[in-house]
Amino acid sequence: MNVEDLETPALTADLDVLETNIRHMADHCRDLGIELRPHVKTHKIPEIAHMQLAAGATGITCQRLGEADVMAAAGIKDILITYNIVGTKKLERLMRLAERADLTLTVDSGYVASEISNQAQEKGCEIGVLVELDTGGERTGVQSPKEALRLAEKVMEMPGLSFRGIMTYPSHERAKPFMERTLQLLRSREIPVEVISGGGTGFEAISKDLGCTETRSGSYVFEGPKRISIPANPPNPVTCALRLIATVVSTPTAKRVIVDAGEKSLTLYTNFFRPQLPPSHYGYIVEYPTAKMYGMSVEHGHVDVGSCEHKFKIGDKLSIVPVHQGMTLNLHDELVGVREGEVEVVWPVAARGKK
Amino acid sequence: MNVEDLETPALTADLDVLETNIRHMADHCRDLGIELRPHVKTHKIPEIAHMQLAAGATGITCQRLGEADVMAAAGIKDILITYNIVGTKKLERLMRLAERADLTLTVDSGYVASEISNQAQEKGCEIGVLVELDTGGERTGVQSPKEALRLAEKVMEMPGLSFRGIMTYPSHERAKPFMERTLQLLRSREIPVEVISGGGTGFEAISKDLGCTETRSGSYVFEGPKRISIPANPPNPVTCALRLIATVVSTPTAKRVIVDAGEKSLTLYTNFFRPQLPPSHYGYIVEYPTAKMYGMSVEHGHVDVGSCEHKFKIGDKLSIVPVHQGMTLNLHDELVGVREGEVEVVWPVAARGKK
Repeated sequence: MNVEDLETPALTADLDVLETNIRHMADHCRDLGIELRPHVKTHKIPEIAHMQLAAGATGITCQRLGEADVMAAAGIKDILITYNIVGTKKLERLMRLAERADLTLTVDSGYVASEISNQAQEKGCEIGVLVELDTGGERTGVQSPKEALRLAEKVMEMPGLSFRGIMTYPSHERAKPFMERTLQLLRSREIPVEVISGGGTGFEAISKDLGCTETRSGSYVFEGPKRISIPANPPNPVTCALRLIATVVSTPTAKRVIVDAGEKSLTLYTNFFRPQLPPSHYGYIVEYPTAKMYGMSVEHGHVDVGSCEHKFKIGDKLSIVPVHQGMTLNLHDELVGVREGEVEVVWPVAARGKK
Repeated sequence: MNVEDLETPALTADLDVLETNIRHMADHCRDLGIELRPHVKTHKIPEIAHMQLAAGATGITCQRLGEADVMAAAGIKDILITYNIVGTKKLERLMRLAERADLTLTVDSGYVASEISNQAQEKGCEIGVLVELDTGGERTGVQSPKEALRLAEKVMEMPGLSFRGIMTYPSHERAKPFMERTLQLLRSREIPVEVISGGGTGFEAISKDLGCTETRSGSYVFEGPKRISIPANPPNPVTCALRLIATVVSTPTAKRVIVDAGEKSLTLYTNFFRPQLPPSHYGYIVEYPTAKMYGMSVEHGHVDVGSCEHKFKIGDKLSIVPVHQGMTLNLHDELVGVREGEVEVVWPVAARGKK
């Protein structure tokens, strides 16, 4: 089937771009001498995770337990979950998962670690543990190298847990003193540090420089070597794999065209790290770069075609590169793989909506 | 099961609030003397549509053909789709749907109308048609009363179509001259206008004043009588039915608490109609109104508890009222109905993700 014949809105991935992104990142990490443990929250598709592993990734990273469940069911063994797993139901699920996969978790408190330890001891499992450092991201993570040491020592004493190393996000240069001091403290107590985990896309060289053994890059699979950000790094159709195929459904004025892709197909756009920016860019139209998506409502995309020579007709199909690719994928139940305009595969977004 | 025992993040609806919202809006429209045709894009759940019909709604409104498919499969007959249906695959599906439901569609061009007519004639169906007016919303719709008349006359000549009236969104007072002139022109040609359709939540009285016979209010089911907007009408737990139940997973500093509900559970927040506003508010925490959700990442909600007397512990459950209720619902596969803290029902969001 040709991509033109897909019912819209249809989320597609250009397979050539996807494969290139996967290969380039694997090569980049190999050249740097850092292991690649891709974050699958970006795609939630086991087939893509397997492509990343085949290209040389050492394992995968998940953000939700439900993502890890789906990936383990697809035969993936080496799984890092970079999230504090909290609550009885989640811990019971975690133990069932531990029977099928080699799990490593991150923790940032003795409480979270001890609850996992209690369950693991009871079930006779062993779970790998990384201590999460808040090196400036101001989200989760221990607040000082001393706190990291104390937590590592606690974890080492807890049955069912195996201390494996440390983790941080994001891998900024300002993380260096925190990480170096933590490693110094751990080594002064002769605590072996097998894993130093950093992230994400675009920060591989910095991660290496910080001493990381692995990078949890994720967005690269769809966004290319550098994360999309507006206005610094707008979506580039050469390195961006996703295309939302939309249909022109109305041409009410000479300047305005309406397509069948709005907030529920492309997500609302805002930039958490730069909240002062107006939502000035909603998607990049590959065929007509001078046509500007200037707004969205729930099911409508609003396109300004005032600077565009092409005369749009109702029924025209457009390929829109989303600005927030991982979030867009999370809205869709299927991703259509396309090569040179022909549909090659349809992947269920198998881990979408899983707790 | 108690709501405290739900695995998080869990999207719940307070059934007392939901039922009150449904009843109040039905009463409000009855008092005004305007028919209520609720927009189901807000909830995408057939059971809620049936509750709205039982309270007196004359039919329902859908924004996607897939929503209409799901609602018709649940036994709902009287369906208005306020969207230009374009493309061969969609038209074929539309004709199958027309065999099971009494359909009315909106159109804003002769092209869209004629394509529907061709299919309807071939299949021997009759489809009701409303002409959409762009009375200031600057989205879809014909641009002038004269254009509305011309399109109505065309529709009346097209086999398989039955001209039923006009439709606009939103129902602002500035729509009045456009609508009055259109009705004048239609009446001058003795074209019967059975339906004048306006929307949405909070605009029922204005719709009546504009001469509308029906209102397509939708958000009220979750948001109450007035749409949530920041800062004018922030989420109010008395009239807002949705609660995202989240768990505290980290308490890294005395001021910061992290919960397991981020962008993929609550949606990115931005306000299309007021893009100059920063995304300053991400959710209202019912138990601790002085705790402020100030940010989100993909799976984390960032809460400032600096002004809050309560000492948060890992494992605490919080009830968060989302600021963009319809968009939040679209992220979840299930909605848990809760009454006085006990789970009463779990509804699949059956029309979620349907094209």
